Amino acid sequence: MALSLAAPGGGSLTAPPEHEAPLRSLVRSVLGSEEASSFQELLPTLAQDVADVEEHLRASLRASYPFLAEAATYATDSGGKRVRPLLMAAAYRALGAPDTRLIQPLAAAFQLIHTATLVHDDVIDRADLRRGKPSVPRAFGITAAIVAGDYLFVRAFQLAARYSPEIILRCGEACAELAQGEMMQENSRYDLTFGRDRYVRIMVMKTASIVSAGVASCGMVAGAPREVVEGLEEYGKAVGVAFQIQDDLLDVYGDPDITGKPLFSDWREGLPTLLSLDAHAALDGRERTEFERLFLIRRKRPADLMRLKELTDRTDAHARSVQEADHLVRRALEALAPLPNGPYKSLLEQIANGVVTRRF
Amino acid sequence: MALSLAAPGGGSLTAPPEHEAPLRSLVRSVLGSEEASSFQELLPTLAQDVADVEEHLRASLRASYPFLAEAATYATDSGGKRVRPLLMAAAYRALGAPDTRLIQPLAAAFQLIHTATLVHDDVIDRADLRRGKPSVPRAFGITAAIVAGDYLFVRAFQLAARYSPEIILRCGEACAELAQGEMMQENSRYDLTFGRDRYVRIMVMKTASIVSAGVASCGMVAGAPREVVEGLEEYGKAVGVAFQIQDDLLDVYGDPDITGKPLFSDWREGLPTLLSLDAHAALDGRERTEFERLFLIRRKRPADLMRLKELTDRTDAHARSVQEADHLVRRALEALAPLPNGPYKSLLEQIANGVVTRRF
Repeated sequence: MALSLAAPGGGSLTAPPEHEAPLRSLVRSVLGSEEASSFQELLPTLAQDVADVEEHLRASLRASYPFLAEAATYATDSGGKRVRPLLMAAAYRALGAPDTRLIQPLAAAFQLIHTATLVHDDVIDRADLRRGKPSVPRAFGITAAIVAGDYLFVRAFQLAARYSPEIILRCGEACAELAQGEMMQENSRYDLTFGRDRYVRIMVMKTASIVSAGVASCGMVAGAPREVVEGLEEYGKAVGVAFQIQDDLLDVYGDPDITGKPLFSDWREGLPTLLSLDAHAALDGRERTEFERLFLIRRKRPADLMRLKELTDRTDAHARSVQEADHLVRRALEALAPLPNGPYKSLLEQIANGVVTRRF
Repeated sequence: MALSLAAPGGGSLTAPPEHEAPLRSLVRSVLGSEEASSFQELLPTLAQDVADVEEHLRASLRASYPFLAEAATYATDSGGKRVRPLLMAAAYRALGAPDTRLIQPLAAAFQLIHTATLVHDDVIDRADLRRGKPSVPRAFGITAAIVAGDYLFVRAFQLAARYSPEIILRCGEACAELAQGEMMQENSRYDLTFGRDRYVRIMVMKTASIVSAGVASCGMVAGAPREVVEGLEEYGKAVGVAFQIQDDLLDVYGDPDITGKPLFSDWREGLPTLLSLDAHAALDGRERTEFERLFLIRRKRPADLMRLKELTDRTDAHARSVQEADHLVRRALEALAPLPNGPYKSLLEQIANGVVTRRF
């Protein structure tokens, strides 16, 4: 309720304290609590930024037909940790902008696109849960989920309509990449011969493109020079892929009480990850055959999943994934070089570091 | 193949003759063959217009990931009779434009949106066939159909990105109405108490809004005065609803050899139409109870469907639907009053008349 009272475009000083708590815990969990304390003074400002984006998002969903707005709003409520709006606000402020008024509708658009794809993903994967709550298809039915996803896309593009054609096209291209990544991932199911490079391409398309387009667009709105926009683009891409690698690791090594997700969903759904591809490549003889056989089982029993983990742990696959993610973080940090130094740039750096150390 | 040779924005005089045949048959079937002959000299021009729109559409779908482009292109190939691009080209030319170069990407965008909703409709309705060919979900699977539909929406908005925010917003609003109409229709299934007015609102939202936005946008691109844009908007809305009423009538009274669709699909899917609502309202006593009982059966046998038709034919429901459609055609013709007289305005008038006399 408090969110609807916050005026869009409001100044940072008026941030009601109740916005800070969730953002503080988000920033703390991304950065680690020690690092978070050094960004304490940025929090009220960023909390207001994210709250303002939220208000644009909600305003755009109010529809004359309540059922559709209800499903769409429900979807955005379970649409994640708001890392994207936070990254966009931080990137835009890192370029010296005194407020985020000009990028708020754009950040809302990117968040809506992200949400739309989650809703359609849940239809495709027949997922019952999303962040511990019934998924949209589960709560409202398949039809409502498909249509509400379309509606979220449409509202996103309406929010983007006020920007330059260049920005709208970039936003659209990221969506197209996302769709292509989705198809590639679908075709990769139960396929261990898929190849590491192709899997990295899936991560770029499915996760990183939209993050990359989001932060790069902020550079464009700020009128930043080309090397800054390209730096942000590269930063978003590297952080996005690193985020996905960490997600894949948490699916096997995470604590469900912290992540809020059951373990081993990638294995259950037959999705190859870097971890699986590397484990499979490193194993040989009977163990490799066993890994393949278990991976291909359509309805895996708990014992199958535990054995897949055991086999994985006999290889250096975990270390290789961590190494790959660390490499991406270094690339993300290098990509920020053209940006002016300052507290928001430091925050972007810490977020990149935090992405691979997070446990949620 | 010939389509890809046609240069986008090419002049009307270069139209290869092979484009004319399908358009001539389209125009003939919409107008009736006698009326069509009086528009003979417009055909090569309009054939080229529609071919140019087609080329924009196809160019926008070429993706680096072939499977996605394949499903999307397959969808556009079975995406209908191209009535929308024809209406937009005719509307734009009726305002005095010497060529349709400026509205071709917009017409392609509207055609892509139409196609995207058909693909998602086929997922929702589990339809096996679309225009006599396997539907996209049938031919490529549910996942590909959902993702390809999203991709078609995205490409549509990218095509629309070059227009003014006002036009992009109108295009988006029509999509949002479409989504709302879809949800309302879904909620109306197996419900005869749904009400005539609400059903008309579904038709406006689901079918007419997008036609209306398409032709009105042409007026906006042409820089036409407000009353002309509003006239086109009203024309599109009236023609769209009349088109839907005729579609509903053909579902019961059409010739499947001509329409290419099996009869009685609305009854099979439990969708109330004007015809059903009026028949139900006009019947009484045991016949009304019987109509209700049959309408509510989830898997109707052929005998059930024939009996529904028999009961319908005992009422004036058919005549009332025809009357309603005729009334809408008159409204469409009146709405064209602010447009300058000329052959393309006459064509728009004839199309409005043809919509309710068509048998396909």
